[in-house]
Amino acid sequence: MAGSPRRAAGRRLQLPLLCLLLQGATAILFAVFVRYNPETDAAVWHSGNRSSSDNEFYFRYPSFQDVHVMVCVGFGFLMAFLQRYGFSSVGFTFLLAAFALQWSTLIQGFFHSLHGGHIHVGVQSMINADFCAAAVLISFGAVLGKTGPAQLLLMALLEVLLFGVNEFVLLSLLGVKDAGGSMTIHTFGAYFGLVLSRVLYRPQLEKSQHRLGSVYHSDLFAMIGTIFLWTFWPSFNSAPTMLGDGQHRTTLNTYYSLTASTLSTFALSALVGEHGRLDMVHIQNAALAGGVVVGTSGEMMLTPFGALAAGFLAGTVSTLGYKFFTPVLEAKFKLQDTCGVHNLHGMPGVLGALLGVLVAQLATHEAYGDGLGSVFPLVAEGQRSATSQAMYQLFGLLVTLTFASVGGGLGGLLLRLPFLDPPPDSQCYEDRIYWEVPGEREDEAQGSLRAEETDTRA
Amino acid sequence: MAGSPRRAAGRRLQLPLLCLLLQGATAILFAVFVRYNPETDAAVWHSGNRSSSDNEFYFRYPSFQDVHVMVCVGFGFLMAFLQRYGFSSVGFTFLLAAFALQWSTLIQGFFHSLHGGHIHVGVQSMINADFCAAAVLISFGAVLGKTGPAQLLLMALLEVLLFGVNEFVLLSLLGVKDAGGSMTIHTFGAYFGLVLSRVLYRPQLEKSQHRLGSVYHSDLFAMIGTIFLWTFWPSFNSAPTMLGDGQHRTTLNTYYSLTASTLSTFALSALVGEHGRLDMVHIQNAALAGGVVVGTSGEMMLTPFGALAAGFLAGTVSTLGYKFFTPVLEAKFKLQDTCGVHNLHGMPGVLGALLGVLVAQLATHEAYGDGLGSVFPLVAEGQRSATSQAMYQLFGLLVTLTFASVGGGLGGLLLRLPFLDPPPDSQCYEDRIYWEVPGEREDEAQGSLRAEETDTRA
Amino acid sequence: MAGSPRRAAGRRLQLPLLCLLLQGATAILFAVFVRYNPETDAAVWHSGNRSSSDNEFYFRYPSFQDVHVMVCVGFGFLMAFLQRYGFSSVGFTFLLAAFALQWSTLIQGFFHSLHGGHIHVGVQSMINADFCAAAVLISFGAVLGKTGPAQLLLMALLEVLLFGVNEFVLLSLLGVKDAGGSMTIHTFGAYFGLVLSRVLYRPQLEKSQHRLGSVYHSDLFAMIGTIFLWTFWPSFNSAPTMLGDGQHRTTLNTYYSLTASTLSTFALSALVGEHGRLDMVHIQNAALAGGVVVGTSGEMMLTPFGALAAGFLAGTVSTLGYKFFTPVLEAKFKLQDTCGVHNLHGMPGVLGALLGVLVAQLATHEAYGDGLGSVFPLVAEGQRSATSQAMYQLFGLLVTLTFASVGGGLGGLLLRLPFLDPPPDSQCYEDRIYWEVPGEREDEAQGSLRAEETDTRA
Repeated sequence: MAGSPRRAAGRRLQLPLLCLLLQGATAILFAVFVRYNPETDAAVWHSGNRSSSDNEFYFRYPSFQDVHVMVCVGFGFLMAFLQRYGFSSVGFTFLLAAFALQWSTLIQGFFHSLHGGHIHVGVQSMINADFCAAAVLISFGAVLGKTGPAQLLLMALLEVLLFGVNEFVLLSLLGVKDAGGSMTIHTFGAYFGLVLSRVLYRPQLEKSQHRLGSVYHSDLFAMIGTIFLWTFWPSFNSAPTMLGDGQHRTTLNTYYSLTASTLSTFALSALVGEHGRLDMVHIQNAALAGGVVVGTSGEMMLTPFGALAAGFLAGTVSTLGYKFFTPVLEAKFKLQDTCGVHNLHGMPGVLGALLGVLVAQLATHEAYGDGLGSVFPLVAEGQRSATSQAMYQLFGLLVTLTFASVGGGLGGLLLRLPFLDPPPDSQCYEDRIYWEVPGEREDEAQGSLRAEETDTRA
Repeated sequence: MAGSPRRAAGRRLQLPLLCLLLQGATAILFAVFVRYNPETDAAVWHSGNRSSSDNEFYFRYPSFQDVHVMVCVGFGFLMAFLQRYGFSSVGFTFLLAAFALQWSTLIQGFFHSLHGGHIHVGVQSMINADFCAAAVLISFGAVLGKTGPAQLLLMALLEVLLFGVNEFVLLSLLGVKDAGGSMTIHTFGAYFGLVLSRVLYRPQLEKSQHRLGSVYHSDLFAMIGTIFLWTFWPSFNSAPTMLGDGQHRTTLNTYYSLTASTLSTFALSALVGEHGRLDMVHIQNAALAGGVVVGTSGEMMLTPFGALAAGFLAGTVSTLGYKFFTPVLEAKFKLQDTCGVHNLHGMPGVLGALLGVLVAQLATHEAYGDGLGSVFPLVAEGQRSATSQAMYQLFGLLVTLTFASVGGGLGGLLLRLPFLDPPPDSQCYEDRIYWEVPGEREDEAQGSLRAEETDTRA
Repeated sequence: MAGSPRRAAGRRLQLPLLCLLLQGATAILFAVFVRYNPETDAAVWHSGNRSSSDNEFYFRYPSFQDVHVMVCVGFGFLMAFLQRYGFSSVGFTFLLAAFALQWSTLIQGFFHSLHGGHIHVGVQSMINADFCAAAVLISFGAVLGKTGPAQLLLMALLEVLLFGVNEFVLLSLLGVKDAGGSMTIHTFGAYFGLVLSRVLYRPQLEKSQHRLGSVYHSDLFAMIGTIFLWTFWPSFNSAPTMLGDGQHRTTLNTYYSLTASTLSTFALSALVGEHGRLDMVHIQNAALAGGVVVGTSGEMMLTPFGALAAGFLAGTVSTLGYKFFTPVLEAKFKLQDTCGVHNLHGMPGVLGALLGVLVAQLATHEAYGDGLGSVFPLVAEGQRSATSQAMYQLFGLLVTLTFASVGGGLGGLLLRLPFLDPPPDSQCYEDRIYWEVPGEREDEAQGSLRAEETDTRA
């Protein structure tokens, strides 16, 4: 059936039409709504009396570029660990990011930067769009190998919308702090993807089990993703914070948290590994949990020791999650989580939100001085006590979990539309359904094409 | 014959002598002409009353580093898609860049920054030198696999010179705007390489046809190049623009253009692919056309919608070029274009130049305000109308095509000098002629060396 | 014996316990000693009247990120050239960096930034910690494949301590200039590692000789490391220099020096190669020697020509070292240097120190103007003549060689502690001792696990 002519014709047209439709729609919306902001518009910028060096570009663009590398290189290669799904991992990451960046410019713009009916764009909106793309790619990790590109684009269509709503509720309505997105990005992206994956549960997935592992070099490709994520995570958490000490402090906290999660990941991985051997899955993923866990509190006065403790905890929880919890999720809860996003983004994201609750509660005028207004403006203005801010932070987590779960459920129903042509159970984690694939080596390249011809004729 | 002793001896000495000769010559010219500019010279900088933070370094160096990554990592790995030519792709990129950076410092310096008989260098000259190296590497893409390193160095020797002349004519004499180099870099590099490749036409190249494809992991290595190019292209186009809104706006336009070219590339690739499958060649290359196409107009008031439309068009044209035009070029025009630079740099470069003509013509005081002087100084000063500027832009394209074609023709004649030892028709796209190459795996490593020994003895 | 139950149990616990112990210790010391510096502390920063844009973050963070990429991506992948040791190369780099960054924050903090009993941290301390991690990773290169992770952590424990002492003696007590660390990083790291490797000499290492080579794709992974190191080295040497012209000039000098070392490496590699072929080992390593050799003098008025000459010399010496000196080191001096750190860091580091002596001696008021105080404060203040500064520089090299040698010797004795479980002579350069390793391809993955089971049962 996989090779039936109608199905092939459908597939040939489905992805192109969807891409063209989505691109056409966002282009029209861009034409109507999107305008340069005062820092990128020649006439407006020059009408002020500002020096070029005051342009926000010089304070945010280096961070933006690091975030951009994380989204495209980091997430893409991190998911390339599968032996026969590297093209899809890297390629669909690319496709999803390209669409999500445009679409979230619109959605986030409607919520956050509408001025006189126009959405204003600049380096801040670029950072925010990349953040939203990151959440989509986290969800992608949960369904990696089990969904086609048309399904993924629809997932992004819905997820970007809900991401924008959730972010608006948290940051604008509830006054919650979440610069690095422990809640808005990691918790949201993970549980959206996990619930979606639950709805798409495949009882016969063991038919593709033999493709679910890595090969030696695919694991090294994945490490490219890991290490760029690890290296640039301080820029991720600090990209949208207040300038000055806020941005500086956030990088420092994230840097230390990641070193601690790396050490605890190595410790735990060897401890629970067969014969004390390390598991690449843990190193590739859990070592990054230190970046997730300080996503909320990184800009606060967490202290360097606090960063180490948080990172250590996150690496531990994440590694144990991969070892003991992922199998249970699948066996008991019918939750197939290809990349283990529950361990890297879900649990550490929730932990990060709770850490934010704790650190917000400890916010005092003594600790922050006049900087309190930068980090907790509502507390500084006397509108809230620190405890009240902490309760809002906690409430923000609950809101996020709700939006993510409901959204993921809706997304799952959407993606089950029958004409969306998901890969059959026996062809999951396989590039060849969507890509022209050469062999590992020259002789194989010939062989695989011949085998494939036979396959589709059958 | 490939293994004849004289030839081997010639090869042994040719590359070393050429490297030493070129390095010696540039070193002497550096000693005579090259000096620190006022921002890098300790005495001059400190004689001013400027704060450290005014140093241009802080406004341009992050962009420079992104450009530098694109030139070395981006181009190098993008060309590593060939199954047996990865060492040469990455290695010769490295060699060519190293030489071109020195040589273009001199050439560009003579044309652009000669002060009292001395060439002044600093971060701007580093950016310009990297730009010139990019043009050389684009040309390299057209002849990839069919030329030896000594030939390539001679190509760079000539191309850097003509690049400098063409750039001087456009930017200084004609007052053409081309910050991101749709003309000076992409169009010039592509047509120089294409004409050169035409002159080096090999009717028997099918003897190496079996090595012209990728293998699974070589395609993933190429994606490293693609994604770094994609991620950093906003820095490329904005690196030399006016500070402030100009640099900021250029990054924004490039960012959006790239997202649109990515969507159109996926759409078109699936549409024209067998069974609706995506082709890695398209994704690796055509998705980048959005960066090329706004190389001229990116700093202008293109509008975000304009950027999307431009990128969409470029991705479409580029993908269709790979599918339908490249085979015709070879069959009808005897033009063997290994990397399809005509599709990624040639056509999108010309399109980008034409887009620059269009957007320049639309330049009004109303749209640019006092910023008009930054983008179109001659128009702001009343020396030219916008239409006249547009005509100059168009003329700049014609000049570039002329310089590139004549230069590529000369280059081809130069590279046909018989003692330059190009690879034989049966040994194209093969690292082993120039490199000590291990096998894919340990057992093969032994086997391949033995096979090679037999080979050279024959 | 490799599979004996006691040994396996020991290994299972050794690495985890050591990680936990070290992490626990540094965490406690962080809690007691480490505090935000005035640029990262909310209360202190906001108590000043400074603009956000004055925060040192904006002048140093982009450079820091480049350094961070070099340490994690650059060193990690550069060492991934071995066919079966990629997981360990990349993974242990990650582990060592994570620990060294924490530990050197403490050690360097005690020596350099103790304020009222507290260590102040910010972007400068992050750069310094990364520098120290780089030295540890250089030493790792000398013993790559012959040491287990527990041994390596102990090596880092000792080396970070001695690095801090040596750096303190040079920079603070002797007033030596060494911004890019020709002495403190490269010479120290190389000779520490080499002496340590000498103490760990394995006469039976030929049992693992067959694993000491690369395979085709492992060489390409290594080139990822090489090219990121090459690209970002200008940021490395300039990261801690004085702001303004100092940082700017250092990047320029390093940039040119690297281009020259690349050309001389290609020249020499082809000259000494069999049949004139290039050797990937040279390109991957010796081409970088230009960065090492201007580590001391890069911030001085070296002149662009001086940078070219220095780089040319370094590439030449380094390539010849790989070809002719490394075999002698092993045969005559029983020094097994896996990555050839003597050629990339040792000799070029010493050369760089001597170049610093020379350029310091030439320092005049005429050449530096009022900038003399930035580069040579003691000379500018009249406390020293330029010649005297040069002598201090030379003395700094001798001190470094002494600390490195004695430290490496001590380190070797420490690592020979019998319970540290090094890999047996027949299992060097092999990931499977420490990692769960899949095969190259699916069928092999099964095979290798089965073979391994048999292995450990034997």
